Amino acid sequence: MALQGKKLINNPDDVVTEFIEGLVETYPGLQYLDGFPQIKVVLRADVVGGGYDKVAVISGGGSGHEPAHAGFVGPGMLTAAVSGDVFASPPVDSILAAIRAVTGTMGCLLIIKNYTGDRLNFGLAAEQAKSEGYKIEMVIVGDDCALPPPRGIAGRRGLAGTILVHKVAGAAADAGLSLADVAAEAKHASEAIGTMGVALSVCTLPGQVTSDRLGPNQIELGLGIHGESGAAVVELQPVDVVIEHVLKQILSQETQYLPITRGSNAVLLINGLGATPIMELMIAARKAVPELQLEYGIAVDRVYTGTFMTSLDMAGLSITIMRSDENILQRLDAPTKAPAWPVGSEGNRPPTKFPVPVPPSPSMKDDEILFQHQELSKQGRILEAAIEASAKEIIDLKDSLNEWDSKVGDGDCGTTMYRGATAILEDMKSRYPMNDAAGTINEIGATIRKVMGGTSGILYDILCKAAYASLKQSTTITAYEWADALEASIAAVSKYGGASAGYRTMLDALIPASTVLKQSLKAGDDPVTAFIASSEAASAGAESTKQMQAKAGRSSYIAPDLLASIPDPGAMAAATWYRAAALSVKNKLHASES
Amino acid sequence: MALQGKKLINNPDDVVTEFIEGLVETYPGLQYLDGFPQIKVVLRADVVGGGYDKVAVISGGGSGHEPAHAGFVGPGMLTAAVSGDVFASPPVDSILAAIRAVTGTMGCLLIIKNYTGDRLNFGLAAEQAKSEGYKIEMVIVGDDCALPPPRGIAGRRGLAGTILVHKVAGAAADAGLSLADVAAEAKHASEAIGTMGVALSVCTLPGQVTSDRLGPNQIELGLGIHGESGAAVVELQPVDVVIEHVLKQILSQETQYLPITRGSNAVLLINGLGATPIMELMIAARKAVPELQLEYGIAVDRVYTGTFMTSLDMAGLSITIMRSDENILQRLDAPTKAPAWPVGSEGNRPPTKFPVPVPPSPSMKDDEILFQHQELSKQGRILEAAIEASAKEIIDLKDSLNEWDSKVGDGDCGTTMYRGATAILEDMKSRYPMNDAAGTINEIGATIRKVMGGTSGILYDILCKAAYASLKQSTTITAYEWADALEASIAAVSKYGGASAGYRTMLDALIPASTVLKQSLKAGDDPVTAFIASSEAASAGAESTKQMQAKAGRSSYIAPDLLASIPDPGAMAAATWYRAAALSVKNKLHASES
Repeated sequence: MALQGKKLINNPDDVVTEFIEGLVETYPGLQYLDGFPQIKVVLRADVVGGGYDKVAVISGGGSGHEPAHAGFVGPGMLTAAVSGDVFASPPVDSILAAIRAVTGTMGCLLIIKNYTGDRLNFGLAAEQAKSEGYKIEMVIVGDDCALPPPRGIAGRRGLAGTILVHKVAGAAADAGLSLADVAAEAKHASEAIGTMGVALSVCTLPGQVTSDRLGPNQIELGLGIHGESGAAVVELQPVDVVIEHVLKQILSQETQYLPITRGSNAVLLINGLGATPIMELMIAARKAVPELQLEYGIAVDRVYTGTFMTSLDMAGLSITIMRSDENILQRLDAPTKAPAWPVGSEGNRPPTKFPVPVPPSPSMKDDEILFQHQELSKQGRILEAAIEASAKEIIDLKDSLNEWDSKVGDGDCGTTMYRGATAILEDMKSRYPMNDAAGTINEIGATIRKVMGGTSGILYDILCKAAYASLKQSTTITAYEWADALEASIAAVSKYGGASAGYRTMLDALIPASTVLKQSLKAGDDPVTAFIASSEAASAGAESTKQMQAKAGRSSYIAPDLLASIPDPGAMAAATWYRAAALSVKNKLHASES
Repeated sequence: MALQGKKLINNPDDVVTEFIEGLVETYPGLQYLDGFPQIKVVLRADVVGGGYDKVAVISGGGSGHEPAHAGFVGPGMLTAAVSGDVFASPPVDSILAAIRAVTGTMGCLLIIKNYTGDRLNFGLAAEQAKSEGYKIEMVIVGDDCALPPPRGIAGRRGLAGTILVHKVAGAAADAGLSLADVAAEAKHASEAIGTMGVALSVCTLPGQVTSDRLGPNQIELGLGIHGESGAAVVELQPVDVVIEHVLKQILSQETQYLPITRGSNAVLLINGLGATPIMELMIAARKAVPELQLEYGIAVDRVYTGTFMTSLDMAGLSITIMRSDENILQRLDAPTKAPAWPVGSEGNRPPTKFPVPVPPSPSMKDDEILFQHQELSKQGRILEAAIEASAKEIIDLKDSLNEWDSKVGDGDCGTTMYRGATAILEDMKSRYPMNDAAGTINEIGATIRKVMGGTSGILYDILCKAAYASLKQSTTITAYEWADALEASIAAVSKYGGASAGYRTMLDALIPASTVLKQSLKAGDDPVTAFIASSEAASAGAESTKQMQAKAGRSSYIAPDLLASIPDPGAMAAATWYRAAALSVKNKLHASES
C-alpha cells in the first residue's frame, strides 16, 4: 500500500527556503544570502562582507539531508553551505555566490559528495571562481562501501562520512593553515572513511506518495541517501546481526575500501537517516563499539551517535568508520559552534566502561541491627498497643471497605488494607524497634510497601517516611512531635499524590484530624483529650466525603448522586485506624495510671 | 491497516538498558550505575563517588522520550537521570540509588513531569532520602496546554517544557546556589511554560504493532507523549495553519495557562517527537517566530529547534513557549556539556534577520566593456578563423553525431553540439573580445552553457573556464600557452567529470592531442606542424573509442559488440572541432606568409 507522504510543510516547492528561514531564526550565528529561490546559501553571520582571514570551507549539494549541510556551518567547521532543491544539485550561480560571499585571500576549499551533478556544478563554479582570481581547491568524498568497486566513471557515492571530512577541514582552516594544507588534510580524511547504510523505510519526497518498496518485515542494506534502491533487501533482523553485517562489509578484505587493519585506531559515526529514534541509534552504538574492538582489534577513539546526514524521513541508520590518528583526533576535538556537530563526544574514552557500583542503602545496614529483643519502655508499650488496635480495626473493616469500594472504585480497598494490617502485626513481632517511635513508623512504611502495592501502598509509605523524618528530629517524642509528624505526613501525601482537602481521599480524614490536634494542644488540652477530639474530627471528615465529588481515581467517573450515599473508603480506613490508635492510647494511659 | 512496528532493536525488553550502554559508549562524560535491569541510572562520570559540592539536579521518568532525560546529564544541566521501562515510571529504589550516588551536602533537586506514577515514586524516594539525612526538594512540571483546566487531581501533563526547567535549574546549581534557591528558580521556570503537541503518526512500542488510530490524511492535536490519544483529530493542513492553531491554544485567554501578555519576552522550543525530520522542525520555527512577534506582540529571545522530548518514533512536534526574563536567559545561555542541549541558540538574536545581499558577479561588470568594435590583431584574425572553422565543421557533423548517439546514447549529441556551434558563431560577432584569446575562450564557455545544458554543456564550460584561467596567466599567447591551456582543460574535465583515458568520452580525443602537442613542441617542431600532428592524434583517438567499453552515461548499458562499430560521438565531435581549428590556423598562417 502506498501511503500518501504526511509532512508538516506548506508548499512542497518551498521546503528548502522555509527550512533555511527557520534555521537562521534558530541560530543567531547563521545567515543566508538574499537570492531565493535560486540561491540557497547559508553562511556564518560573522564572515559576511568579505575579508575573511582564514581558508573558507564550503560544502553543499541537494537538500533533504538535513542537518547536512547547513547545520554544520559555524566557526570551526563550514564557512558556508549551498543547498539545491530536494535531492538536486545546486546551480552553479548559487555556488559561485557562496564562494564570493565568504572567500578571502586565503582561498576556499569545496568539499562535495561524489555525485555527477555536484561534481559538475561545483567544478564549474570552482573554475569560474579561479578565473575571477580566487584560490580554490576541491575534495570529493566517496565513502560508500555497500557496492563492489565500480568499473566506471561514477565511483563510490558520498555518504555520512563526509561530515567527518567537514570537521577535519573546518578545524584545520580555523587553525590558520594554508589552502594547500587544509585541502591535504581533507583529502587524507576522505581516504580514511567507509560508510554503509541500512533502511527500515523508504523516504517520502515532499508532495509525493511513499514508495511501497519495502514490505512490513523487510529492511534494505547498502542504501543511498536519495531514495535509490539499496544493494539488497533482507528480512528484518535483530540490530546486533545487522550491525555485524554492516561492519563486515565496510571492513571487507575483498573491496579493500578502508585502509585499516587489526591494531589500528578508528572513529565511529552512527548516523540516523531522518526518522530513527535516538534510542535505536544508541542501541546500535552499543553493539558496534565492542564488535570493532573485540572482533576486529580496532581501538575506538571517538563515537558520534546522532543525526548528521539524512534522507528526508527515512527510518534507518548508516555507520561510518574512519581510521584515526593524532592529527585527526585533534581536528575532531577542536571546538566548533556549528549547531549540528555533536557535543560531549570529545576527549579520550576508556577502552571499556565499568558501570559505577550502586551506593549501599544505609537502611540495609540498619535492618540487621534494628530489632533486638528488648525490654519495652512505657512509650514502647503504648505504641505497640496503638499499632495493634489500629491493625485489628482495619482487619475488622475489610468487608465494609470492599463493599464501599466496589461501588465507587475497583472493590479491593478492604483487601489491600487488610493485607497491610496483617503484615504489620506480623512484622511488629519480629523486627520493629518499638522503643524507637520514629524507627517503628519507618518500618511500618516498609511493611506496607512490601505487601500493599499500587497507589495506596506508595502513599502510605510516603506518609510513614515523612512521619519518620519528622519524628527523627527529636529525641523525646511527645504529643507535639506526633502532631508535627502528622502534619508533615499530610503535606507529603498531598504534594506527591496531588490531592487536597475535599478531593474525596484519605486526606479528608487526616486533615481535620491534624487541624483539631494542633488546635487542641495549643489550647492547652491534655494529649489524650486532644487525640480523642482529633480522632472524632477524622471520623466526621471521613463521613463528609459522601458529599464530595470525586477528583481522583475511578470514583471520578461515578455519578454524584450515587456517590452521595457512600463514603470514600480510603478516608474511612484512615479515620478508623486513627481513631483506634487514639482510643488505645487513652486506654493504655488510663490503665497505667490506675 | 496496523503495521508491525519495525525497529532496529534486539529484545524489546532490553531497549532501555541497551540504550544506556550505547549512550555511555558515545559520551565519555557519562556513566551508569551497575544495577541493570532494575536500576537504570545515568550520571555524570565526574560526580561519581560522592562529595559533590553543588546542588545535584536529578530528573527521570519512563523511557521512550530519548534524548530525555539521560541525554541532558552533564555539567551545567542534570547530575543524573533515572529511567524506567518504556513509558513506565522508574521504581523507588532506582531513584534512591541515583540520589545517593550524586547528592552531597548541598542537597538534591528532583524535577519530574506531572504523572501520578512519577509523583509517587519520586515522592517516596524523596521522603526516604530525607529520612536518610539528604536535603531534597522536588519540582513537578505540568506544562500541557491542550486540554481545558482539569477539575481533578491529575493536573496538567508534563511535556517538553520540562527540558527548559532542567536547564534553568542545572545552570543555577552550577552557579553554586543553595538548594532553596535552585528549587525556587526551577519552580519559577516551571510556572512560565506552556506546551502543545501535534502528531502525524502514533508511536510504536517495542515489540508491539502500531495503532491505526490516525488515517492517512489525519493529524492529532494536543497529544501526550505516551501514545495516549490527543485532544482532537483533524485533517492534515499546511504547517503554518497548524502552528497558528497551536500558538493560539497555548496563549489562550480562556485557560490562562501561560502568564504572558503583549509586550512580554519569550523563549521558543520546537521539539520533534522522534521521527520528524529537522527540515520540518525548522519550517515550523520559521512560522512560529514571526507569528509570536507580529500577531501576539511577544519578543522571541531564543529559539531551540531540535529533538528533546520524544515519544519513541512518533512523527510530529510540540511547541513550548516560556516567558523569559534576564535571569532565565542567563541560565539558558550558561554553558553545559549535556550532549542533547542545543548548541548555537545562545546569545541575543535580532528581532528579524535581513538576508545578506548576494555579492555581485565581477564578470557582470566585465560584460559591458568586453566587446568593443576593434581592429583585429593578427592573432585575433587567426583565432576568429579557427573558431569559425570549428563551429562550421560541428554544424556539418550534426547528423552523423545524432546517428552515432542514437545507437549508444540518447541521440541528441549532434543537436546539442549544433546548438552550441551556432550560438558561438552568433555571439562571436557581437561580444567576444577577439584580440584577447583568454577572454574569448571564457566567453565561449558562457555561450555554451547558456544554450547547451546538460552534462556536455557543463563539461565544455569547465573546459573553457580552465583554459581561460591558464591562458590568463600570460600576456603573450604562443603555441606553448595553448598547449598548457589544453592540458589544464583536460585536467579539469577529468577531475570534475570523473573520466580518464579509455572511458570512451571526449577525453579520448583530447588526451592524445595534448600529449602529441607537448611532445612535438618539445622536439622543436614549428607550431603549425605540432598542431596538425596533434589534431591527427585527436582523430585517431576518437576512432579508437570504437574498441572501448563505455564507463559513463547511457553507453555503459550497451552491449560491447554493438559499441564496437560506433565511435563515441563526444570524442568524434572534439576531434572534429580540434582538427578544423588546427587546419584553419595552418591555412591562415600560410596565407599570411604568401
